[in-house]
Order: sequence, then C-alpha cells, then structure tokens
Amino acid sequence: MPDTTVFVLNGPNLNLLGLREPAVYGSTTLADVEVEAKAAGARMGLAVDFRQSNHEGVLVDWIHEARTRAAGIVINPGAYTHTSIALHDAVKAVDLPVIELHISNVFARESFRHHSYLSPVAAGVMCGFGTHGYVLALEALAKIVATRNATSPR
Amino acid sequence: MPDTTVFVLNGPNLNLLGLREPAVYGSTTLADVEVEAKAAGARMGLAVDFRQSNHEGVLVDWIHEARTRAAGIVINPGAYTHTSIALHDAVKAVDLPVIELHISNVFARESFRHHSYLSPVAAGVMCGFGTHGYVLALEALAKIVATRNATSPR
Amino acid sequence: MPDTTVFVLNGPNLNLLGLREPAVYGSTTLADVEVEAKAAGARMGLAVDFRQSNHEGVLVDWIHEARTRAAGIVINPGAYTHTSIALHDAVKAVDLPVIELHISNVFARESFRHHSYLSPVAAGVMCGFGTHGYVLALEALAKIVATRNATSPR
Amino acid sequence: MPDTTVFVLNGPNLNLLGLREPAVYGSTTLADVEVEAKAAGARMGLAVDFRQSNHEGVLVDWIHEARTRAAGIVINPGAYTHTSIALHDAVKAVDLPVIELHISNVFARESFRHHSYLSPVAAGVMCGFGTHGYVLALEALAKIVATRNATSPR
Amino acid sequence: MPDTTVFVLNGPNLNLLGLREPAVYGSTTLADVEVEAKAAGARMGLAVDFRQSNHEGVLVDWIHEARTRAAGIVINPGAYTHTSIALHDAVKAVDLPVIELHISNVFARESFRHHSYLSPVAAGVMCGFGTHGYVLALEALAKIVATRNATSPR
Amino acid sequence: MPDTTVFVLNGPNLNLLGLREPAVYGSTTLADVEVEAKAAGARMGLAVDFRQSNHEGVLVDWIHEARTRAAGIVINPGAYTHTSIALHDAVKAVDLPVIELHISNVFARESFRHHSYLSPVAAGVMCGFGTHGYVLALEALAKIVATRNATSPR
Amino acid sequence: MPDTTVFVLNGPNLNLLGLREPAVYGSTTLADVEVEAKAAGARMGLAVDFRQSNHEGVLVDWIHEARTRAAGIVINPGAYTHTSIALHDAVKAVDLPVIELHISNVFARESFRHHSYLSPVAAGVMCGFGTHGYVLALEALAKIVATRNATSPR
Amino acid sequence: MPDTTVFVLNGPNLNLLGLREPAVYGSTTLADVEVEAKAAGARMGLAVDFRQSNHEGVLVDWIHEARTRAAGIVINPGAYTHTSIALHDAVKAVDLPVIELHISNVFARESFRHHSYLSPVAAGVMCGFGTHGYVLALEALAKIVATRNATSPR
Amino acid sequence: MPDTTVFVLNGPNLNLLGLREPAVYGSTTLADVEVEAKAAGARMGLAVDFRQSNHEGVLVDWIHEARTRAAGIVINPGAYTHTSIALHDAVKAVDLPVIELHISNVFARESFRHHSYLSPVAAGVMCGFGTHGYVLALEALAKIVATRNATSPR
Amino acid sequence: MPDTTVFVLNGPNLNLLGLREPAVYGSTTLADVEVEAKAAGARMGLAVDFRQSNHEGVLVDWIHEARTRAAGIVINPGAYTHTSIALHDAVKAVDLPVIELHISNVFARESFRHHSYLSPVAAGVMCGFGTHGYVLALEALAKIVATRNATSPR
Amino acid sequence: MPDTTVFVLNGPNLNLLGLREPAVYGSTTLADVEVEAKAAGARMGLAVDFRQSNHEGVLVDWIHEARTRAAGIVINPGAYTHTSIALHDAVKAVDLPVIELHISNVFARESFRHHSYLSPVAAGVMCGFGTHGYVLALEALAKIVATRNATSPR
Amino acid sequence: MPDTTVFVLNGPNLNLLGLREPAVYGSTTLADVEVEAKAAGARMGLAVDFRQSNHEGVLVDWIHEARTRAAGIVINPGAYTHTSIALHDAVKAVDLPVIELHISNVFARESFRHHSYLSPVAAGVMCGFGTHGYVLALEALAKIVATRNATSPR
Repeated sequence: MPDTTVFVLNGPNLNLLGLREPAVYGSTTLADVEVEAKAAGARMGLAVDFRQSNHEGVLVDWIHEARTRAAGIVINPGAYTHTSIALHDAVKAVDLPVIELHISNVFARESFRHHSYLSPVAAGVMCGFGTHGYVLALEALAKIVATRNATSPR
Repeated sequence: MPDTTVFVLNGPNLNLLGLREPAVYGSTTLADVEVEAKAAGARMGLAVDFRQSNHEGVLVDWIHEARTRAAGIVINPGAYTHTSIALHDAVKAVDLPVIELHISNVFARESFRHHSYLSPVAAGVMCGFGTHGYVLALEALAKIVATRNATSPR
Repeated sequence: MPDTTVFVLNGPNLNLLGLREPAVYGSTTLADVEVEAKAAGARMGLAVDFRQSNHEGVLVDWIHEARTRAAGIVINPGAYTHTSIALHDAVKAVDLPVIELHISNVFARESFRHHSYLSPVAAGVMCGFGTHGYVLALEALAKIVATRNATSPR
Repeated sequence: MPDTTVFVLNGPNLNLLGLREPAVYGSTTLADVEVEAKAAGARMGLAVDFRQSNHEGVLVDWIHEARTRAAGIVINPGAYTHTSIALHDAVKAVDLPVIELHISNVFARESFRHHSYLSPVAAGVMCGFGTHGYVLALEALAKIVATRNATSPR
Repeated sequence: MPDTTVFVLNGPNLNLLGLREPAVYGSTTLADVEVEAKAAGARMGLAVDFRQSNHEGVLVDWIHEARTRAAGIVINPGAYTHTSIALHDAVKAVDLPVIELHISNVFARESFRHHSYLSPVAAGVMCGFGTHGYVLALEALAKIVATRNATSPR
Repeated sequence: MPDTTVFVLNGPNLNLLGLREPAVYGSTTLADVEVEAKAAGARMGLAVDFRQSNHEGVLVDWIHEARTRAAGIVINPGAYTHTSIALHDAVKAVDLPVIELHISNVFARESFRHHSYLSPVAAGVMCGFGTHGYVLALEALAKIVATRNATSPR
Repeated sequence: MPDTTVFVLNGPNLNLLGLREPAVYGSTTLADVEVEAKAAGARMGLAVDFRQSNHEGVLVDWIHEARTRAAGIVINPGAYTHTSIALHDAVKAVDLPVIELHISNVFARESFRHHSYLSPVAAGVMCGFGTHGYVLALEALAKIVATRNATSPR
Repeated sequence: MPDTTVFVLNGPNLNLLGLREPAVYGSTTLADVEVEAKAAGARMGLAVDFRQSNHEGVLVDWIHEARTRAAGIVINPGAYTHTSIALHDAVKAVDLPVIELHISNVFARESFRHHSYLSPVAAGVMCGFGTHGYVLALEALAKIVATRNATSPR
Repeated sequence: MPDTTVFVLNGPNLNLLGLREPAVYGSTTLADVEVEAKAAGARMGLAVDFRQSNHEGVLVDWIHEARTRAAGIVINPGAYTHTSIALHDAVKAVDLPVIELHISNVFARESFRHHSYLSPVAAGVMCGFGTHGYVLALEALAKIVATRNATSPR
Repeated sequence: MPDTTVFVLNGPNLNLLGLREPAVYGSTTLADVEVEAKAAGARMGLAVDFRQSNHEGVLVDWIHEARTRAAGIVINPGAYTHTSIALHDAVKAVDLPVIELHISNVFARESFRHHSYLSPVAAGVMCGFGTHGYVLALEALAKIVATRNATSPR
Repeated sequence: MPDTTVFVLNGPNLNLLGLREPAVYGSTTLADVEVEAKAAGARMGLAVDFRQSNHEGVLVDWIHEARTRAAGIVINPGAYTHTSIALHDAVKAVDLPVIELHISNVFARESFRHHSYLSPVAAGVMCGFGTHGYVLALEALAKIVATRNATSPR
Repeated sequence: MPDTTVFVLNGPNLNLLGLREPAVYGSTTLADVEVEAKAAGARMGLAVDFRQSNHEGVLVDWIHEARTRAAGIVINPGAYTHTSIALHDAVKAVDLPVIELHISNVFARESFRHHSYLSPVAAGVMCGFGTHGYVLALEALAKIVATRNATSPR
C-alpha cells in the first residue's frame, strides 16, 4: 500500500539552521532534519515532502498545492508565524490538519514571538523540542490522519 | 475610441474563491468573477486587466506597472490588507484612483480584519457585497476616471 | 407593478451638506442628493423614502418603522456611526438588509472615525465615493433585495 | 533496571474530563488517560506518577516533591496556566524539564487562554492533540531525560 | 589590494524614487543614488553591490547571500522595516554589521513608521539625511569594517 | 394608604421586545412585561409608572421627573447603558435609589456591552433573569424604599 | 415532597462578614445570612446547603459536588470573582444554573473589581442589594429551576 | 446700534443646576446664571440667547440655527462633551467661534470626563471657574468677535 | 490700600513668544504680555509679579516662594504641563489658588499636549484665548481671591 | 512583661529558599531566616510566629487568625503578591499594620512582578534587602506597633 | 577610624516637609529629619551628607559627586521618581549601592506614582514608613556597605 | 573666510562618558570626543562649540542661544531624549537644522529608550555608531548647512 503524503513546510531563515544562533537552535542543519523527518515518516507510513522558502507567497502556494496532494501539513512558519494573515487564510482554505511547529520555545523569547496567526487555525501546536519536534509533529499528524480515515468514508 | 484600461488585482488565497469557506465567500470562482468583471467593464468602456497573486511583492510590482498602463485600480488585497505597508506605499506612489474591495463584510469578522493599511490611501472602500462588489467597484472607478478626464487636460 | 420601498436615512449634520467643509464633502446639497437618489431608485424599481435627522432616537424610530414598511435601508449615520450602539441594536432588530454609507473616506480622517458600531451588523459598507455613493448603495441594495425575493417565497 | 520516575500532573477541573464539554475535550476520562499514559511510559522506561488536584497550592507542593523524586514533569495546569505565577516560580525552582500540555488548542479558544505563565519556564509546550498529547509529551520528556543523562554524570 | 564588498539593499517602492512623493523623498532617482554610492564606496575602498526588490523574500535571500560574499550591509528596508520579522531574523542570522537607513525622517511621519523590527539587530540606524544618507551610511560601515579587521585575525 | 410610585424606564429598542432576537430576549412583549410589573408592584404596594423611549434625552427628562414624583427607579437603559454619561449624571442628580436591569446576561455578549456608565451610580445591578428580572428588581427596590422610609422621618 | 437542594457558596473573607468594612458590607454576619437564606429557601421549596471557604480549590470541589447533589448554585465568589478561571471552568463543567452574587455594588468600587470571570458563564448576576441579595438570588434560582423542571422530563 | 447676538447653550442635567451635587456645582440655579449672563452680555454689547436641553439632537439643531443667527457660541455641553461626535461635527460645520465651558474643573473628576470631543474644534476652553465662567467666556467671545469684525469686511 | 500680589509664571520657551511659530502663538512678545498683564492687574487691585524660566526647578522654587508672598498664581507651564509631577506637587503643597493657562488651544495640537499634570490640582484651566488669556486668567483669579478674603478672616 | 506577638508569613516557594535560584535569593534557608527573625524580634520585644504555605487560602486563614492573636504582620507573599485579591481583602479586613516584604528587588525583575495587590493596603513596602529585610521589616513594624500603643488606650 | 560618608539626597518639594499635606507626610520638617538621620548614621559609623534640591540636574550632579566621595546613597527622589530617566542613568553610572526611599506609601496614592524609573537600578526600595524610613534605609545601606567592604579588598 | 559656527550639545550623564557602562558606550571620554569633533569640524569649515549639561533648562537655554549664534546643532540629549517636551519645543522654536545623535543603538536597549520627543522635529537622527557618530553627524550637518546657504540669499 502506498504511503500517505504529508508536506513539511519550513519558512524564512530555516535554510540557515545549524548555521545561525546555535545557542537557540542547535547545530543540526535543515538537511539533517529532512533526513530524520523522512525516516520517521517512513516508519509511520507517511511520505514526507520536505520544503523550505523565504517567501511568504511561496508558502501560501505550497499550502494550496497540499489541498489536492497531501493528507496533512507540518509547518514551521518561522517569522511569518507572527505576521502572516495570508498563511492563516491559506490554512483555513485547505481543510487539512495542520500542525504548527517551532524548534525553540517561542514563549521564552521576545514578546513579538508570543502571538501566532497560525495557531487558531492549526489542529495543534508544538514548540521547544528542538529538531526532535519534527518527529513528534509527524507522529501527531499520523494519528490525526489515521483517525480521519477511520471515521470518514472519503 | 479604445477602452480605458483598469487593473483589477486580487491578493492571496483569492485563487481558491468558490472552493474555500463558501459560507463566507459563496461558490463563484475567480474565473467567474473575471468574466463578469470584464463584461461589466466593457459596458462602461473599461478594458479590465484581471490578475491574482499570493505574493505581496508581485502585487506591489503590478501597482507600479499600472502607473503607466492604467487609469485606475480595483484591488482586493486579501490578507495583505491588514499587514502590508508596502502596498500602502505603492498606492501612494502611483497617483491613480484605487478602489479597495472586499467580498465579505470584513467588519463582521475577526478583529484583526478591521484595520486596513490600504484604506487611508484608497479613493474609496467597499465590502460585503459578494462578487457583485467587483461590478460596483468598477462602476465607482469609471465615474472617478470620467470626472478626472473631464476636469483635467491630461 | 408598484415599486419596492427602501429607506435612505441620513444622520446628524447631513442637512448642512454642501454648506459645510466642502473640501471634504463637495458642494452638492442633501436636496440634490435626494433628487438623484430618487431618480436612480426609480430606474431600479425602488421607491426611495429619503429622510434626515440630527436625533439618534429619531433614527432608531425610523429603522423600526422600516421593519414593516421597507425592503431595505441605506443609512449614512454621520457621527452616530461611531458612538451609537442603539443604532446597532435597531439594525439587528429589524432583520432587513442595511447598507452603511459614508460620503467621504472615513479611514482617511481622524482615528475616532475609523470604528463603526453599524458595520458589523450591516450587509455591506461603502465610503469615499462622494454623493455618487448613494446611487451605488441603492444599486447594491436592489441586488440584495432582488436575490432575497428570488430565493424566498415571502 | 528500574524505571525513571516522571510526574504527570493535572490541574483544576481535569477530574471531570470526559464529563464536561465533550465537544472541546472528547469523552475519554482522566482514568482512561492515566492508563494510557502509564502504558506509554512503561514502553519508554518511565514510571508515571499520575495525579490531579483542583488546588493551586497542591500543584505547587507536588512540583516541589518532584525535585527529589522525579526526572521530569508533564503538567496540564488547566486554568492555572493563565493565572498562576506560583506555578511559574515552582517550575523555575525545581530545575527539572517540564512539558506544558493542553488537550485542546487553547489558541482557538477565548483570548484569556492565550497567555501562559508556565510557557516561558517550560522546556516545551504542546496543545491541541487531545489525550494523545499525553503520549507525545511523555515521548518528548523521555528524549530530554535521556539526553540529559547521556551528557551529565549525575 | 581588491576592494571589500558591501551590499546596499533597497526595499519596496524605492525603485520609484524620484518619481513618487518628491516632497518627501526629493527627485533623485535610485539609479542616481547607485552611481553616487558606488563612487563614495570606491573612495573608501568598498565595492558596492547595489540592489532593489519589492519582495520581502528576495531581501531575505540577499541578506543570506551577503553572509559569504560581503563584509557588511547597508539596508533601506522601506515598508518592510515596520512589518518584517523575517528580515530581523535574517540580519541576526548572518553576523555582519548592518546599517539601517531611511531617506526621510520616519519619526516625523505616520506613527506606524516609528517602529522598526530591524533596528534592535542593526549596528546603527540613520534617517532624514536624504540620499546623502547612503554616503554617510557607507562611511559608517567602512569604519566598522575597518575596526573589525584591525581587531580580529580572521 | 396610597401606593408609593416608582418609575420603570426602558431604553432604545425595548419596544421591539418579543419581536427581535428571541434567542437572546425571549418572546414576551414589553406590554406583557408592563402588565406583569404592575401586578407585581401592586402586591408590594408600589404604583408602577412604566415607560419606554428610544431617545436618550427623553430618558434623562423622565429621570428628572422622577425626582419629585417617585420613590425610586428601575431602569433598563438598553444600548445607552454603555454610551450615556448623560444618564449617569441624571441618576447622580436625582438622589433616588435606581436599580439597573438587563434582561439578558450582558457579560455573556459582545465586549462593548460589558461596561456600564450607569452601574457606578446605581444602587444595585441585575442581569440575565429574563423578564422575571423586572419583578426581582421591583422587589429589591421595594425593600430599599421601605428601609429608607423606616430610617428617615421624611 | 422533599425540597430541591441548592448550594449557596461563599468565597474568601466572607467569613468575616459583619466584622470587616461595615461601611461597605453592613453588620450582618454570615451566620445571620445563612439563617435568612435557609428560611427564604424553605418558603420556596429549596433546601439550602450553605458553605464558605477561603480556598479556591475547595470552591471548585464544591461546584463539582453540586453536579450530582444540587439543582443550582448561588455563588458569592468574593475576590476569586476577578482572578479565577478555575471557577469559570468549573461552572461551565457542571451544567447547572449558577447565580453570581455580590453584596456590595462592585462597579462602584476599585476598577479591578469590575471584571468577573464568572459572569459570562453564570445564568445571571446581581450586586449591590446587601445581604437581601441572597434572598433575591434564591428567588431567581427557584424560578429558573422550576422552569427547567417544567420543560424537561429529567 | 443693536447688540450682536450670541448663543449660550447648556447641555444635559444643567437644568438641575443648584439642585444637584452642590459640593461640585454650587447652589446657583440656571435661571440665576441666565440673568447674570444676560447682564454681563449687555455690558459687552452682546444679546445673549440662553438655552438648555437634555437632547443631543436639539443641541445640534441649535448650533445649526446659530449659523445664520449668531456671531458666536458659548457652550457647556455637559455629559455630551465626552460622548458626542455629532456636536463636534456641528461646531466644525458652522464656522463660528465657539467657547467650550465647564462649571467644575473636569480634570479633577472621573477620568471619563478628561476627554472632550468639542475641544479640538473650539476656539478656546475654560473650566473650574464656577458660574463666573459664563461671564469670562462671554468676555473671551466678545473679544474674538470684535477682532473678527475689525479684520474682516463682513 | 496696597495691592494684593499675584505671581504670573511662565515656563520653557515662552521667552521666545512672538519669535517662534507665530501661526500658533501670534507675534506679541512676552514683554508685551507683561505690560498688558500688569496694567490689567492694576485695574483689579493686583500687583503682578511676572516671571519666566526654562528650568523646571526654578518654577518649583517660585511656586514655593509664592506660598508666603502671593495670594494666587497664574501659570503657563509650557511643556512642563505635560511632564512635570514636581509642579503638580508644588501646587498641591502651597495651598493657593492656581490658574493654569495656555495661549494656544492645546487640545487642537499633538496628542501629547492633551494631558496636564497641573490641571487636577489647579483651581481652573483656560486655553486658546491667545495672550488675552492672561487678562481673563487674572480676572478669574481676582474673583477667587476676593471670594476667599470675603469668607475667611485671614 | 510578655512580648507582643507578630506574625511573619511566607508565601509560595519560599520553603525552597536557599535551594532555588541562589543568584537571585542567596543561599540562606528559610529555617535560617526564622532563627534570625525570632532573635531580632526578641531584641525588640516581639514574639515572632513564623510560618510558610504554598496555599493562597491558608495565607488568608492565617491573616484572619492574626486579627485576634497578633499586633501586626510581616508578609512575604511570594507570587501571590501579583495575583491575589483575596489577600488584599484579608489585609483590609483585619485592621492590623501589615508590612509587605520581598527578598529580591522585584522592580528589577519581570514586569509581571512590578504590580502588587498587597501594596495599596500595606502600611509599608520593602524589597531588595535580601534576608536582612526580615529584620528591617520587624524593626519597622515594632515602631508602628509602639506608636499605636502609645497613642491609643487599647 | 573616620566614618564612612553616605549621601542622603532629597528631591523636589521635600523642603516643604512638615508644611505641606500633613495628612500624608506628617509634621516633621526636613531639618528634623536631617538631625535624626545624622544621629542614626553616627550610631552606625556613617557620616551623613544630607541635601535637598528641587532641580533634577542638581540631583544628577550630586549623584555624580557621590561617585568619588561616598560609599552609598539614600535617595528620596520625590516627583522625579516617576519622570526622570536622567536619574536612572546617573545611578547606573556611579556603581554605588543606592536605596530608594519614600516617606508615604506611594502605592496607596495616584496611579502615576506607582512606577519608578529608579527602582530597577536601586539596590532596594522602601516606602510608607514615614520619616522613620530614613533610619531604616541608612541601616540597610550600612549593612550593604559593610558586606561590600568585608568581601572586597578595595 | 571665517568658519561657520555649529553647536554640539550633550545632555545628562555624558560627562561620565568613558567612565560609565563601558560595555555600552566604550572608554573614550567626552574630552576626547570634543577634540575629535573640533578637528573634524575644522576640516569641514565648521567651528564647533562643544558643551555638556545635566540640566534640562540649560540645554533649552543653549538651543535658544544657538538661534542667533549658530548655523545648526548636533545634540545628544541623553535621557532627556525620552522625557523632554521642552527640548522638542525649543528645537521647533529656533528654526535651525538639528541632528539628533546617540552613541549607542537606543533601539537595542530598554523600551523606554525607543521613543524620542526630539526626533519628529530633528532634521535627521543617528544612533549606534559610537563616538564616530559625532563626526558623521557633523558631516551631515555641514551638508545641510551648505545646501541651505546655496539655495537661500540669507
């Protein structure tokens, strides 16, 4: 049986993961995370489509693309978490379970990182678990997707 | 006599019109709106250049383009209404009449949709009339353009 | 076939239209607007009952009167837009389509004019189109009334 | 080798889980959750000490008790999340990894649930995953505890 | 000895410099500024890579590119000054001296222009000096780069 | 012995009681309430003068009238609760016990209904008891009036 | 026929009633109030279970206890009115009619007493009627309980 | 030479002057003030048209009437000072010198009396001088009217 | 009989009166005002001690000096109006009638000029009457001083 | 002559003093403080009843107990300083001199520690003096108690 | 052994101590306080240099002077507490222990007295102990100075 | 040809430059800066009059003095930046180009340093360039003065 596809989307500056502010984010690179996420996804029967962009519009485009191509989304929206109503609207528009993920504990940082436009429309939110959070978020998403499939004929 | 060109610009997530949140936006698609807007424009002597983008920067580029190519703009800025000072500056820079349009009544929705960075620099604002708003906005724009032409030699 | 009646209600100080602050409102008088609105209404099959009062209570009374006498309301509530919860409640109570209209672009003026108690309960909102806004608002209302009639047996 | 002990602490009203507001929290009872959490903990080598209290002071006492008796804490502080600086101070005082957990997505509820006094001093935060969140939180805690043990001689 | 490269980045709407709101910005075009900045840079031993974009994501990409290609950045972020946490994060990520520059005195304009997400992570900030500010900013940057080179073996 | 007179004053839109928003206010009309209030008053030895107006100024006038004609006031100020300092001043000026009454629980509705200019100068406040609140308010007023009469020779 | 049981719960510092701040609360003691409340309840067919605690958690416990033991609650939450989301959640959880009661007019006191976490989930709210408020609140509750019994078979 | 007419307008509750809160307003009645104001006006060559209303709309009407009948206005707007944008607009509309007057020092009272919608459009503001303020305000108005007459041919 | 002494104190930048911003303040110099104030004072039996300082501390010293040397104070505190609690305390400490005066209408200027630390402790406040305000303020002060003398034996 | 009894009450987490955050609080334990406080009290003729609890309700109970058993209270309310209106009310209810004490300088810490519900009803407040503050607070209390005894016959 | 010098600095209006608002500050004069403070200092081995000024700049100068002439400062900054960042910076600049002192309980007074710019940079804060506070503050300072001397060779 | 005079004014605590908080301000003293500024000025044809005061009033006096004695001002207002409307008014009054300068990046420090009363009336603002900022500011001022001289006959 083919795997269910999920998108793992990463927002601005995450391409520098492991290169910037290691005290906050650790030294693992985004390529490392992709490998780890795909392996974890495989164990759960999820094909992980892993992407990164610094462009708000591209992230919106990808969420739209997920509408017909994926069963769910894990998104680490980076700085757009706090400023993008466009992402909020995109998530509402696609009717997929979306997990919002942050590597660091955003609530222990600057106050402008305490508000998220994504959280009210996400299925769930996780932060502070480092890159291990990607695995936990996929696990949470796998559970939600499995429950949806079990309870709806679609 | 050739028609006067006006731009009708649509912001993020409007490409999903008719597919998302029909209780709020109805089931008409953006392609349907384009047809209706062009037909209405034609009746008023306006050639309607109808576009959509999820990218804030692209919307800024198009407003700049309108400077030399159009007599006015109808813009439904979607989520960028509430977050984009770049669009505010672009509208101020081009010295064209700009009508701000929303399909739903934004004032009956979440409080973060009540503030618009566009409104102070728009000629006028309309919301809540569904897709019929595009026709009303073009009619309003046609009137403004006609008045401008009548009173200025340019 | 007799026309459908709609109310066009005008709030405080609009009786001085054309006499006050012409830089903001133009020199057309309210009597001129009434003529134009009635003519436009006639073209759309609407009998326009056009009134003005400086008294909040009178505007509330008229909205109540519209309940049984009109198919919809266009209201330019003037200063009461920003201070009257009584008008908000009246609009909610009558279950008629109500279009909120402002001659000037209120969002380009003092900040205390940016909030409207009417907007959340209006069908739609328009501002900045000068006295031409009355025609556009009637057109919007005509469309809503026609749609209602088409879809409900009442 | 004996299991590492972790505390799973539940705050006010969670004793009614499954009995109250099932649309928000589902119908699983806290006893069900305890069984599930203990089983999951056992798979990870964690002995789960699972408790509930409606008293802020009791929760403070238990966090203090964990100082010498546990390797980490998962806490669902319920309403005290938003009002208790005493819990904030207790968490800071004990120098243990603490995972803050909410069953529902608090960011999709009333605005007074959007601020947490616990989050800035928690290792990580999770919400919206239903009772499955307890398993995810234990998994996150197990990972942190394992990393700590690997890197410190204590 | 070859020149040290610095980036001079310009944000949204600056491509219209000299064309828009001359009362605020003067009539010098961005091409004029580029010529002047390159000439001034040359006098200071700086090779100036001068760019403009209306896209937030492109500005983020360019700051990342500067990490390995430039000794410092002068940035006039335009409207993104006030709305972009993504730019804030990009500046923090690249560990280069960054000078924030505005042509007009932003503090004498609308209140939404008084807050900058860039300023807390910039080395220094300048505004109000017209296009001469580019020369002053390069001079400030040259000094910082020279000091860094003098005090660190790298 | 003749009854003591009390005023029961009703503010804007209460004339539509039973006709508007029955989910919030029920289907009892204001005429029904008047009958019930007069009957209840009669049982307590109170002659109830029951009135309604949509005009803030009329409500002020009536409170003034009560000064010399009534022993106390029950007032349901409707929307003027939240906006009328004139009513606040009138209540302070007349030195009568005034009970503020709301049919619905205003604290469970929009936030602009949570503040009352009347409450700080009222003897007591009641809300959420439906039209039964009128009886309870009269009972509270009867008690206060009786206590006043017992303790003062006037 | 046995009486219906209702709880009358009193929060912190109410045990000092009659001893503290008599200018605000009068000289009646809580024991006096209990006698009066039980007598009034008896007249209405209500068995009044009257309690007081200074502990937030105990009040939460008692509300939970009422779930299966009482037909409704009158609660004077004292200072916890303004600070306890735990009580808010408890009231929501038990699905009983709850009357919020204050002896003094809280709106005439310090501003931190103007907000109540209980009010939005209470059936109704009363304040300012002194200890007579307990009788009025029981009367209001008796009415609600009677209506519920009349309309539901349970 | 006939006197110049000026209006002295008094807002809500001022009809009770001398009867209400004498500690704040003194015991002089409004009739006393009228006599004193007319006598003072006579000394300055001003015919004083002295009025009072509790109705916001009536005050608006009177300001409009002054447009063609008076050379200036002294207004004590009472509670409408703080809530009436309609009065603000009326004053702006009539292009007459308007002196805002308060008997008590509003800045020494409740904070909701510290903001005036009238002040920004008044020629000048006075408060705290008791009923002597009416004489001072007329004197100030006389000076302004005299200066206007001296410098304009009208 | 010797004149009663009053102080007329002027705060920062008033020494430039007539030289700065004539559109706001007119062209009369402070020396002109002193002459006019002394003449007016003389007519009222007041010896006017007229002073100006740019130093907050000097103004505090002068108010202290007035305690034993003057019967009242007219003060135009300039910018210190809005920032000086020291002046507030000084006025409270001296127990003299103090009239706060502004030449321009401060409420028609920047919002930071709308709050005064002096007003709550002043006897009365006047603004917007140009330099004529000094005469009006002295007249108001003369009246207060005369009333005090008439009613107290001191 | 027997000593006068005073209560020294300690709030949540102070039982961990010397064990938690020594950089903020030092390494002295609460037992050490008790010894020091009792010794200091003895020198001043005060019998010190020294207690600690993590429970808000227990602290309220103890303040009530002090009503009849002590001449004054020193209280370090810990986190309840900032959240407990119940403690505010308890202090007001008992009519004893109460000294609020904090070991650290709360104004140099997080902003949520800057507001105290206790301070407005305390006799005096001290913070930042480490555990020496207990001695200073007892000295302050001894002085107040002595003054009270000297001036009142009780 | 010569005494250690400490400065006791007093801000604006404290020269009127005992003369102003005795209900708040008592009748002791500042000269009395100086005598008492010097005597207390002498007992502790501190030479007290006691000063007062109404000038913010003079207080800044004196703090600078203390840098090389004193071992610590007790400062009662009066009104400058709430408005002077210059004093904040001066205290930070001199690296001496500074005790902030207020005679009255500032937290029981107007809200603008609740914030202090000094507190975050003071060693400790005391208020509400009347003039006895000077003795307590010197005692606190003596302890800090002694501890510093004991632990550092300087 | 004689040099043009400019004033370089320094506010409170800058006399301690190099002595206080070197991590923020470096170790250069103000005397060093004066030498450097005068030398730089000399190269640009500017005679630099360099001063420092801790007194707000003295800074106001000096700005007034500059009116007739200087062609422009560089001012580092220190703490008065954030609190002095008197300086704002002085700058507006003198009609000279004024450059606001800060040595450190104020936007990277406490939030109370983010607002400047000077900035809206300054020609331009600079911060974060250390003492080199004085040279840059003089260069900016020289350019403005030269442009003014070139374009105006005065």
